[in-house]
Amino acid sequence: MTISDSEAGVRLALRTPASVDIFTRILTHGPIGRIDVGRQTGLSQAAVTKAVAPLLAEGIVTADAERPVRATGPAAGRPVQPLRVVPDALLVLGIKVNVDEVIGVATGMTAKVRWSAHRTIADSRPETVVDTVCAVAAELIALLGADAGRLAGVGVAVSGDVDSASGVVRDSPLLGWHGVDLAAPLRARLGLPVLIDNDVRALTIAEHWFGAGIDSGSFAIVTIGSGIGCGLYLNGDVVSGSHGVAGELGHLPLASMEAVCVCGRRGCVEAVASSGAVLRAVRDAAGAPQLTIGDAARLARSGDEAAIAAFDRAGRAIGAALAVVANLTGPDTVLVAGEGMQEFELYERCIREEFTAHAFGAAADCVLITRAHTFDDWARGAAASLIRAVVRQELHRI
Amino acid sequence: MTISDSEAGVRLALRTPASVDIFTRILTHGPIGRIDVGRQTGLSQAAVTKAVAPLLAEGIVTADAERPVRATGPAAGRPVQPLRVVPDALLVLGIKVNVDEVIGVATGMTAKVRWSAHRTIADSRPETVVDTVCAVAAELIALLGADAGRLAGVGVAVSGDVDSASGVVRDSPLLGWHGVDLAAPLRARLGLPVLIDNDVRALTIAEHWFGAGIDSGSFAIVTIGSGIGCGLYLNGDVVSGSHGVAGELGHLPLASMEAVCVCGRRGCVEAVASSGAVLRAVRDAAGAPQLTIGDAARLARSGDEAAIAAFDRAGRAIGAALAVVANLTGPDTVLVAGEGMQEFELYERCIREEFTAHAFGAAADCVLITRAHTFDDWARGAAASLIRAVVRQELHRI
Ligand SMILES: [Zn+2]
Ligand SMILES: [Zn+2]
Repeated sequence: MTISDSEAGVRLALRTPASVDIFTRILTHGPIGRIDVGRQTGLSQAAVTKAVAPLLAEGIVTADAERPVRATGPAAGRPVQPLRVVPDALLVLGIKVNVDEVIGVATGMTAKVRWSAHRTIADSRPETVVDTVCAVAAELIALLGADAGRLAGVGVAVSGDVDSASGVVRDSPLLGWHGVDLAAPLRARLGLPVLIDNDVRALTIAEHWFGAGIDSGSFAIVTIGSGIGCGLYLNGDVVSGSHGVAGELGHLPLASMEAVCVCGRRGCVEAVASSGAVLRAVRDAAGAPQLTIGDAARLARSGDEAAIAAFDRAGRAIGAALAVVANLTGPDTVLVAGEGMQEFELYERCIREEFTAHAFGAAADCVLITRAHTFDDWARGAAASLIRAVVRQELHRI
Repeated sequence: MTISDSEAGVRLALRTPASVDIFTRILTHGPIGRIDVGRQTGLSQAAVTKAVAPLLAEGIVTADAERPVRATGPAAGRPVQPLRVVPDALLVLGIKVNVDEVIGVATGMTAKVRWSAHRTIADSRPETVVDTVCAVAAELIALLGADAGRLAGVGVAVSGDVDSASGVVRDSPLLGWHGVDLAAPLRARLGLPVLIDNDVRALTIAEHWFGAGIDSGSFAIVTIGSGIGCGLYLNGDVVSGSHGVAGELGHLPLASMEAVCVCGRRGCVEAVASSGAVLRAVRDAAGAPQLTIGDAARLARSGDEAAIAAFDRAGRAIGAALAVVANLTGPDTVLVAGEGMQEFELYERCIREEFTAHAFGAAADCVLITRAHTFDDWARGAAASLIRAVVRQELHRI
């Protein structure tokens, strides 16, 4: 059996590195012909046929109805039956923990959202978060109905220094957590495999397998909003950091040393560029402690100088941070995303000016893509991280 | 024939990706038993035997005399005949271009230096550099005598934005070069394959294959001295940058915006931390424009406050730069090297303070290794870069 039931989630058993590579290629690039699978993975047609046969037999992979035969090339005349993964063969839940809410999605194997659910939280204590994650998961499981029997597990995304192997959130300034074991209580209460991941790393996996990074050789995601994060995909894989930390852009000392950060350091990017820092600056200038980030944006759009200055200062720090990413890692594509994209036009001029000022030589040639933020992006990232662990046979080893 | 003569350097013909992997493992980890080669490359014993046979037959790989048999494990009782690459089966030249001198080494396959030579240059115009590289190469070829017939090519390392595929130095602030085709004139005059590489990337290859990085999963090299450079090894390979730029640490805006850099930008690390910047600060304070960096170090060691302040300021920028590398890429090991190591104790306290201040969470757990600078390090890096291109069958495709 390729898929086997177990008391803790259904499994996808791919027995060799070659079959993992082949399945991954079909998952991320399907519909795709057998010949292209072999060519793109560097494996023989015999290896492709051998790996695909059991997946076809069990309905995890399907061959589409015949398409027009190839007119040219070595396979001219042969029918092309492109392979693709059956999206709902396995289902997963992806859940994002924010400081004030928990957002969840239920997706199939291609991270396409079937259901979503969210609940606000009054505080971000670990007990509150565990309760709320379980409540959101229960809501999604109820929405899935009988399909919930095909759940492989639950991915949970949290900002900060997360050790996926142990399921421990080592340090999350935003949540105020230090050394919180999030996986153990969730596994016990949900009865499913649980994978905890850093939120930006999870988003990077989603983009690498199912999004903007699919045909990119190297890319970076920079997220703006309540935190400034960065995910990197280099040399064929997501950069995870040897001690679990990588892409920590938010606390690099790229801002004025007068700015004090929530982490206690001075000069951090987030100290001037997080939505919280922008909001504090606008509130202080306006003497209006009740303003929201939406109010601050309206002030800036209406020409309020202090509000414009706060967004400009944030934009300069973000632009410098983008230049750091480009100069140090040389990606072909940098995707700017996150909930801060709702105010992107207020940051944009200073971001571009500062990026251009500090990008070194050909590092400036990387393509900057901006993407509007959707509510479920982060939760979908958590789902993608779990899907990757399922495919790589890592979930039950954690 | 595995090695075949051609009018442009001897070649090493490894016909499959598997044989490249196997040869690389023997080269970097030999002497190594066949079983370990298979285990470490993930390839079958049959594949190892098939790849090794022609290499043994032609004397490129050798099996050492029998060692004591294994006492335990699945191969217990079988004789172990560890494999290693015959170092002088192929020879290469590695040459580093500095602003005031050209340094060359002749090495075998394991980048062990057999001969070295260097010449000072009066200016760093491309014509001068080409003439001097050819003169240094001729000197090394004369020293090799009849062995020069086994030369595979010449690696040349230059600081800045280098496009190895075209052999063009796109931008080198230190040399004052923009768009200089260095490979073509050298190939024409030397009659050998020539590979131009960024100097720090070349040093990273040397450390990855033959040095501190050999058993590291991810590492960074940060070089201090006339420039501040960085090489990265992540996810199984050197980070090359999609447009040829990566590891450009020297021009990140981590210093005071009052500091003006040779590149024209403000706030660059090199604007305060290059040996040139330190020297300028000490000269200005002492009103002594003839001081050397050695004089500046002696002043600091004797307690001169302005000199100490100059080294401290440099140390802080270097420490912040190290934190950027650790936070963004999460290496397990960071190696600090370069000619600035001769004054390392003057930088060290501020480097460590600033690194600790800005390293985020577990990123601070990376191991910082410092290494004394040797004269031939950089040239050996150029040799290692060429060796890698020979093994990967890339040299004659460039
Ligand atoms: Zn901070
Ligand atoms: Zn500069």
